Amino acid sequence: MTVEQLLKEKYNMEIPEAPKPGGIYTPVVRTGNIVYVSGQTPKRDGQLLFKGRVGKELTLAEGQEAAQYATLNCLGLLKEFLGDLGMIKQFVQIIGYVRSATGFSEQPAVMNGASQLLFDIFGERGGHTRLALGTNELPGGAAIEIYCIVEVL
Amino acid sequence: MTVEQLLKEKYNMEIPEAPKPGGIYTPVVRTGNIVYVSGQTPKRDGQLLFKGRVGKELTLAEGQEAAQYATLNCLGLLKEFLGDLGMIKQFVQIIGYVRSATGFSEQPAVMNGASQLLFDIFGERGGHTRLALGTNELPGGAAIEIYCIVEVL
Amino acid sequence: MTVEQLLKEKYNMEIPEAPKPGGIYTPVVRTGNIVYVSGQTPKRDGQLLFKGRVGKELTLAEGQEAAQYATLNCLGLLKEFLGDLGMIKQFVQIIGYVRSATGFSEQPAVMNGASQLLFDIFGERGGHTRLALGTNELPGGAAIEIYCIVEVL
Repeated sequence: MTVEQLLKEKYNMEIPEAPKPGGIYTPVVRTGNIVYVSGQTPKRDGQLLFKGRVGKELTLAEGQEAAQYATLNCLGLLKEFLGDLGMIKQFVQIIGYVRSATGFSEQPAVMNGASQLLFDIFGERGGHTRLALGTNELPGGAAIEIYCIVEVL
Repeated sequence: MTVEQLLKEKYNMEIPEAPKPGGIYTPVVRTGNIVYVSGQTPKRDGQLLFKGRVGKELTLAEGQEAAQYATLNCLGLLKEFLGDLGMIKQFVQIIGYVRSATGFSEQPAVMNGASQLLFDIFGERGGHTRLALGTNELPGGAAIEIYCIVEVL
Repeated sequence: MTVEQLLKEKYNMEIPEAPKPGGIYTPVVRTGNIVYVSGQTPKRDGQLLFKGRVGKELTLAEGQEAAQYATLNCLGLLKEFLGDLGMIKQFVQIIGYVRSATGFSEQPAVMNGASQLLFDIFGERGGHTRLALGTNELPGGAAIEIYCIVEVL
């Protein structure tokens, strides 16, 4: 099964269109076999779906869902850039900046929403080093910003 | 025209001397054709020019200018390391940590100050993946800290 | 002398066992000669040793010690992954996110605790580009989170 089929079957979700850049930058850059993706927030069709601080305006579960939406935006950009997500040899690094209310310290649990999804649809290739961090403010008030680096075939 | 000439013509600015490290680290490290630059704040001649939180002590426009100064420090380090900024094949990744007042969420607009400058003086080579993030505190009270990764010829 | 011997002699410390992942991710990923390590907090034997904000619950000196413990966890993971820390050709990048009380701006001094240690036990190979950043919240309330990228032989 393809990544898209697994995503549909296991999560009833789809790889979104590649989001338009929210500033003057390049969404994806390749150097050698390494591909860098710009930071993504949980937007769909130009609308930010998850705003606020996890642990205050948003629950942990909402944070996890936000992490999935942001990660899917990374995948949308990679699909547009590579033509086929099957070109991804392995995920290398994912960093998630979780907008955190004072005293909220479950950033890893938030990011597990994204990490589990990657394992579920990419299998072993979906393994990645990770940082889960807190931050006070993010673009547009987003709940999370995620970027990734992947190695391609 | 060279990068230096374009910077002078379009911004009336110059590539600064490579700043001295503000700690026990190496300003620039090369591995293969990839060059990493250490985080830079908007210092000139050892003085921090932009202190405070964007959205409170500093305006958006000041934040953008701070982003330019920090980016020029990256370029000063790259020029010293490479000998010639013409050796840069492409920018790969830039991350900007914007010290943000509570409720300030225009980090991408702040970073556009830096991104536009890179496009204006490097052209297509200046394209880069980007993250624009908020943070509560930065070294010396700086308004912004920026680092970049570039690919060289 | 080996890295382990220098660490014992100069710091009376040891490379810890590789810590278990605190989430659904891969501790270390290699691509080509570059090895990425996941974010590490100052844990030992599953216990977080340094909690709180530097500049409030923790002093600068405690923050520096926390930076050393987090860095040693990176080394524990690298030792497990590489078999021998002598396989490290050079450190490329280290980023330290320091959980900072309002007004605390000595993140570089905190990170110097880690950087000095790397120079002391790896010599020239221990040189690295660095970012020292503030953040409001970190996993489990940790005082610091550090990751590194190294080049291997």
